[in-house]
Amino acid sequence: MKVLVVGANGQIGKHLVSFIQDSDSLEAKAMIRKQEQADFFENLGADTAVVDLEQDIDAIAKAAEGVDAIVFTAGSGPHTGKDKTIMVDLDGAVKTVEAAKAAGVKRFVMISSFDTRREAIQAAPESFAPYVAAKHYADKWLKGTDLDYTIIHPGILTNDKGTAQVNAGVEVERGEIPREDVARVVVASLENENTIGKEFQLVAGSVPVKEAIRSI
Amino acid sequence: MKVLVVGANGQIGKHLVSFIQDSDSLEAKAMIRKQEQADFFENLGADTAVVDLEQDIDAIAKAAEGVDAIVFTAGSGPHTGKDKTIMVDLDGAVKTVEAAKAAGVKRFVMISSFDTRREAIQAAPESFAPYVAAKHYADKWLKGTDLDYTIIHPGILTNDKGTAQVNAGVEVERGEIPREDVARVVVASLENENTIGKEFQLVAGSVPVKEAIRSI
Repeated sequence: MKVLVVGANGQIGKHLVSFIQDSDSLEAKAMIRKQEQADFFENLGADTAVVDLEQDIDAIAKAAEGVDAIVFTAGSGPHTGKDKTIMVDLDGAVKTVEAAKAAGVKRFVMISSFDTRREAIQAAPESFAPYVAAKHYADKWLKGTDLDYTIIHPGILTNDKGTAQVNAGVEVERGEIPREDVARVVVASLENENTIGKEFQLVAGSVPVKEAIRSI
Repeated sequence: MKVLVVGANGQIGKHLVSFIQDSDSLEAKAMIRKQEQADFFENLGADTAVVDLEQDIDAIAKAAEGVDAIVFTAGSGPHTGKDKTIMVDLDGAVKTVEAAKAAGVKRFVMISSFDTRREAIQAAPESFAPYVAAKHYADKWLKGTDLDYTIIHPGILTNDKGTAQVNAGVEVERGEIPREDVARVVVASLENENTIGKEFQLVAGSVPVKEAIRSI
């Protein structure tokens, strides 16, 4: 299964491409914004495609040609300029979903935010609410398609070394999760068809990733 | 017909409440953010409701109880902070649409932007694109409901005195339009059921408003 990683040069993205390349059943194509980011991925034996998420759907669809799955892990992050929040976290995600449809790629894994329900927009601190709103609408858009989606809602992302042990479920207590373990969960989700059509929250925990994802 | 004007204290909103109060068939309820904005509308004999668009759907639905139509003319404007673009122009609009549904109000008139198609997001200058994106998704949301909507796409808004003469159509040449004439077109749209389920671009022109709207 060939997997286009959108946002490959991000922190989760780099772990993810690395784990995909380590997997027997998967191979990665890293979608990156600049040619000078390619070395890291080529050294892992991964394909690359240079596309800026602010380009149009056709450009993204071209990068998606011939792949079997797309993972959206691009993000402006909650603390970038708010213009990027709507252009990347919402519009970039929607364009990637539309590109998947245009390229005939059915499988789509979205890295979302911990809680993207309507109530969470209202409850968020003012500086964080635009990010939650962007993720809310992006998730809604994906769920309105007939793609084979999985939406992962990670807790507070850290750069701690992963433990490969998590707590995943429709609703779990808010907590931290190393980016490395989010990447492991994406791989496990791609390898488990039972995650199709589902969304789940994800924090650090005590259940091995594969087991946690099998019972989602 | 009682009309809730969301964004009544804006420049189009003030003209609109005034025209509605002048009309024989319509009466206005002005939704405003602060109690101290109420005087202007009370002096016109209009009802008021103090609700901030960043409150939840229930608060907006309560303001919409008992009205027959809602006009959304709130806007952060293209040059406010981009956090307000997503929170007001997109999320505020969506919450108002959902409030209309919750309160059983079928008729909805949206003041959009001149061109909110996917292509217009891509073509917009970087500083303007987030605004176009927000309006794109708001319009899409409204069109996905079964409300009796009309979406008005005005050209470049000016504070010039209106002439009550416009050019309205599915696609017209880009140009300016006085805010006063946008307000006139909203009233004419509310008074003409043939505008239901339609959207049109609007610039200054040479056709009297009522005639232009009748033939939309």
